[in-house]
Amino acid sequence: MPLPIPLRGIVTPLLTPLSAPGTVDEPALGTLIDHVIAGGVHGIFILGTTGEGPALGLEAMRRCIARAGASARGRVPLLVGITHAAFDDAVLLAHAAEEAGAAAVVTAGPCYFPVAQPELVAWCKRLAGASPLPVFLYNMPSHTHVQFSEAAVVEVARVPKIVGLKDSSGQVQYLHNLLRAVVKSGVRPDFTLMIGPEELMAEAVLLGVHGGVNGGSNLFPKLYVDLYHAAAAGNVEQIRALHDRVIDLSRRLYSVGTYGSSYLCGIKCAAAELGLLQNILAAPYAPFTGAERERIAAHIAALRG
Amino acid sequence: MPLPIPLRGIVTPLLTPLSAPGTVDEPALGTLIDHVIAGGVHGIFILGTTGEGPALGLEAMRRCIARAGASARGRVPLLVGITHAAFDDAVLLAHAAEEAGAAAVVTAGPCYFPVAQPELVAWCKRLAGASPLPVFLYNMPSHTHVQFSEAAVVEVARVPKIVGLKDSSGQVQYLHNLLRAVVKSGVRPDFTLMIGPEELMAEAVLLGVHGGVNGGSNLFPKLYVDLYHAAAAGNVEQIRALHDRVIDLSRRLYSVGTYGSSYLCGIKCAAAELGLLQNILAAPYAPFTGAERERIAAHIAALRG
Amino acid sequence: MPLPIPLRGIVTPLLTPLSAPGTVDEPALGTLIDHVIAGGVHGIFILGTTGEGPALGLEAMRRCIARAGASARGRVPLLVGITHAAFDDAVLLAHAAEEAGAAAVVTAGPCYFPVAQPELVAWCKRLAGASPLPVFLYNMPSHTHVQFSEAAVVEVARVPKIVGLKDSSGQVQYLHNLLRAVVKSGVRPDFTLMIGPEELMAEAVLLGVHGGVNGGSNLFPKLYVDLYHAAAAGNVEQIRALHDRVIDLSRRLYSVGTYGSSYLCGIKCAAAELGLLQNILAAPYAPFTGAERERIAAHIAALRG
Amino acid sequence: MPLPIPLRGIVTPLLTPLSAPGTVDEPALGTLIDHVIAGGVHGIFILGTTGEGPALGLEAMRRCIARAGASARGRVPLLVGITHAAFDDAVLLAHAAEEAGAAAVVTAGPCYFPVAQPELVAWCKRLAGASPLPVFLYNMPSHTHVQFSEAAVVEVARVPKIVGLKDSSGQVQYLHNLLRAVVKSGVRPDFTLMIGPEELMAEAVLLGVHGGVNGGSNLFPKLYVDLYHAAAAGNVEQIRALHDRVIDLSRRLYSVGTYGSSYLCGIKCAAAELGLLQNILAAPYAPFTGAERERIAAHIAALRG
Repeated sequence: MPLPIPLRGIVTPLLTPLSAPGTVDEPALGTLIDHVIAGGVHGIFILGTTGEGPALGLEAMRRCIARAGASARGRVPLLVGITHAAFDDAVLLAHAAEEAGAAAVVTAGPCYFPVAQPELVAWCKRLAGASPLPVFLYNMPSHTHVQFSEAAVVEVARVPKIVGLKDSSGQVQYLHNLLRAVVKSGVRPDFTLMIGPEELMAEAVLLGVHGGVNGGSNLFPKLYVDLYHAAAAGNVEQIRALHDRVIDLSRRLYSVGTYGSSYLCGIKCAAAELGLLQNILAAPYAPFTGAERERIAAHIAALRG
Repeated sequence: MPLPIPLRGIVTPLLTPLSAPGTVDEPALGTLIDHVIAGGVHGIFILGTTGEGPALGLEAMRRCIARAGASARGRVPLLVGITHAAFDDAVLLAHAAEEAGAAAVVTAGPCYFPVAQPELVAWCKRLAGASPLPVFLYNMPSHTHVQFSEAAVVEVARVPKIVGLKDSSGQVQYLHNLLRAVVKSGVRPDFTLMIGPEELMAEAVLLGVHGGVNGGSNLFPKLYVDLYHAAAAGNVEQIRALHDRVIDLSRRLYSVGTYGSSYLCGIKCAAAELGLLQNILAAPYAPFTGAERERIAAHIAALRG
Repeated sequence: MPLPIPLRGIVTPLLTPLSAPGTVDEPALGTLIDHVIAGGVHGIFILGTTGEGPALGLEAMRRCIARAGASARGRVPLLVGITHAAFDDAVLLAHAAEEAGAAAVVTAGPCYFPVAQPELVAWCKRLAGASPLPVFLYNMPSHTHVQFSEAAVVEVARVPKIVGLKDSSGQVQYLHNLLRAVVKSGVRPDFTLMIGPEELMAEAVLLGVHGGVNGGSNLFPKLYVDLYHAAAAGNVEQIRALHDRVIDLSRRLYSVGTYGSSYLCGIKCAAAELGLLQNILAAPYAPFTGAERERIAAHIAALRG
Repeated sequence: MPLPIPLRGIVTPLLTPLSAPGTVDEPALGTLIDHVIAGGVHGIFILGTTGEGPALGLEAMRRCIARAGASARGRVPLLVGITHAAFDDAVLLAHAAEEAGAAAVVTAGPCYFPVAQPELVAWCKRLAGASPLPVFLYNMPSHTHVQFSEAAVVEVARVPKIVGLKDSSGQVQYLHNLLRAVVKSGVRPDFTLMIGPEELMAEAVLLGVHGGVNGGSNLFPKLYVDLYHAAAAGNVEQIRALHDRVIDLSRRLYSVGTYGSSYLCGIKCAAAELGLLQNILAAPYAPFTGAERERIAAHIAALRG
């Protein structure tokens, strides 16, 4: 399916079902894709942070891409994360994405080697030149330790092959500014702006952002789709009610652990409790077990209730 | 060549000669290895930060490992950097290192996904279990955004397969503490402790650290070997004279650029000026050109003079 | 005027008019207070970050407090910033605030000495014990380098004398979480939660936060008061229109400089252009002059349009 | 006593004896000054970080300055910390220092308001203009969240009234660079460079730094004085032996607690165990009690043994 311009709605940053740490569980991947499409999501983004992309080996990433393409079958646009420390391997993944019928690739920039803004801009432009597919940027400073500055986004948004940005900084003001500087300014009226944290999706969409790339839509896709529609329509009563449910879910499922891995361990464990996949993570993270798993199970029961 | 226990002296964090961004220049790699061995270095560490390891694709890393093994021919111990966001690809590289006759592998821990200390410890132990070769730790918080805590080092130093640590934090006090806590305490009397920044090597070795993994030894290996010997012997007059030359070189060659990439761009450009390799870097960094290259050339002329 | 529980609406973090760096311009202080009250604001907060509180000497702070109390004359609640590295001087300021008829004091915690959460909690409790007035917390991690954790707020919110928190982290999710954990949970149903950045006020208030402590209300108080009312009422059309104006103002006035001081230099220069005070700042900041001042002047002309 | 140019040797960053949190214990202050002078230190620095300067109220700081001046009686140069968020109060303290017969004042720059390098340089120049005494800079990025860049030091070192810098960054390479850029370059041949962390003093002095401002010299002044002399003379055997004792002391006394306050709580508790002062700290820190105090007491007994 070709990429809507701009892309609007809920894009699921898909969990990667694993049968062993680092090994993709391909049947479960197909099932999970069917689950979120049935819930009404407007796109699927594989191999992002929620999908543990950078933690998977090159071969596992290729298998994941091929299977996701086959399973999605063009029902919704497929975006493929190609964030990698090595430029050449990122390009290999972009070609695999094209072969699988994906609509776009997504890059958070390089990791490991720290980059200044001009180096980050050069990376993105070069990647756009080498990629057979359109490119989304992914602002993820907690993991890449660099933020796409507003000036950098304005500059790369002039490259037609670069089509949008997902922001996971948690700073909604950054998106308010990008809306002004990139979209409304006329620099690139069709540039897509999406927000990562689901806890901020309603307000961002209400004020002009195009949609959300929200992890919780792996679990309960309809909740996020409904909230997106309420926000886009400016239905305040519905927004308040559904936003409350999203915050409740977030507080129950993403803060059980004691480290920065709480989100990822929590959402995968929750998906396992829902029967969507096995509770297996790639290194460096370990799945919740014992008391932590029980807490997630109890919360899932409460949320389903 | 088997790994001396502990490893002492100067280990060159080898630059990776490239014929195009991301493509290893294998003949130049052989020449560079001969150059540093002729200068008396006690070991070679490929695919570290100075070697742009994480910026190279998996296939290029494999070629680099194989060629380095063939070129070193057991004259000095060969250490291979396997720092990677994906555990499984790190293990692939460890096996390639063994096949090439390397003495050990080196890991800075995972990149991209942030880890807490217990997760970092688990990563190292698991890697030690999966690696066919002994493992060195590489404390590199400026790039990995995590520091191996003293408690973490004490814990992993109890794993026989984990044999040492290179510290590039620039905090010599950290090494003074590790010497106490790991080596002199008897936890692991033969654990190797090496220092990264060459500007701090003399003082660290004088006070008990086993050696330096110093980038400048790519260029002028004998200078660093001589300073190591002076420091180990406690020859203060020589230490002061040679340390001054090391600081002079560092200030001339590593601070020409304006970003964090100054060190890497500077040292590679300097090596090119010395005829050791071509002035080509892998993304995300770009080689010095124009005025910056001219400044490096002038400094190299002054240092040679 | 006693403190409404909870405090709702727009509280102006008042600029401190100066006649020389560090010297309060008392008549202009009175005029500015009249200006914002005429614009309908619901409270005044002096000696915060926007008021350059910590940059003023102890004697200047006392004069500012006395004059603000005399000028406000109980028309709106007066809050007084007492953030200080020295606990004892913070308490001196709290007593000065009481004498001036203030309704509450505000602390961002200590500066200079870094504190862990238990130390921050102890500071707040001890301050509540020593202060003759109710205490607001002020989460300002960009300046204090510590964030009040959710657990810390839950703990101190059990102290009756601690009545609310202003968050200037820019992370709206933090406030969504505090609303849940402190207010809706029943821990402290009347705890006031206010948001600092005006660019996020509409969405925060729409979703339950009590109001905004917004610098721009020094300049155009009615704009912020109107936006607050639209957000509280859930009037989406008005919210979108007024939020757009707030973002426009923010982008014009707060990003002219090149350092972190852009906000403070910009807003003070803008107030000077509006004739509200002289363009004088306390050290360490210097007022905009030349091209920067001209840009602010042009933007003020456009905004007044 | 006038300031030696450059100042060489051990300067004790004096603990401030308190009789209650925030209240100076003046008799104990006199005793402590006699103690360190008897141990041979070359100078005394009051109201620094170790002296809890910024945590004391303005009035307490004034009393401390007056009493220290009276107690030192010109036997060694007295330096007075005037680090303060408010420029005007820093100047008040500088005048108090002059009245007390101090030789110089010391500033870490402003706290609370974040500054860019040009703002930091302007602060220092302005302070030099307003201070009746010579000014030392104090590089303390862990507390001020700004580092004096090399370029900034080169610039302010051209101001005759600014006479030296104490570095507490823990990055010895920074001092190696400043020695080159400021002293050996001829920019300011008599500029004093001192190192804060005692664990790094020997190596810094061996390689050209003028001395150490080392907290441990409150406890055992002769140990640090002896190590300074060994390092200045290049006596390697003595350096190794005394450095080992310094590291041992540091590990025993400064890492008992669990927060960043471990150093300050530990050294004050140790001084109390030695009978030099009462175990009282100013907010935001609390003294060690119970098991923590017992551990310090046991370590003091072992060190004395």
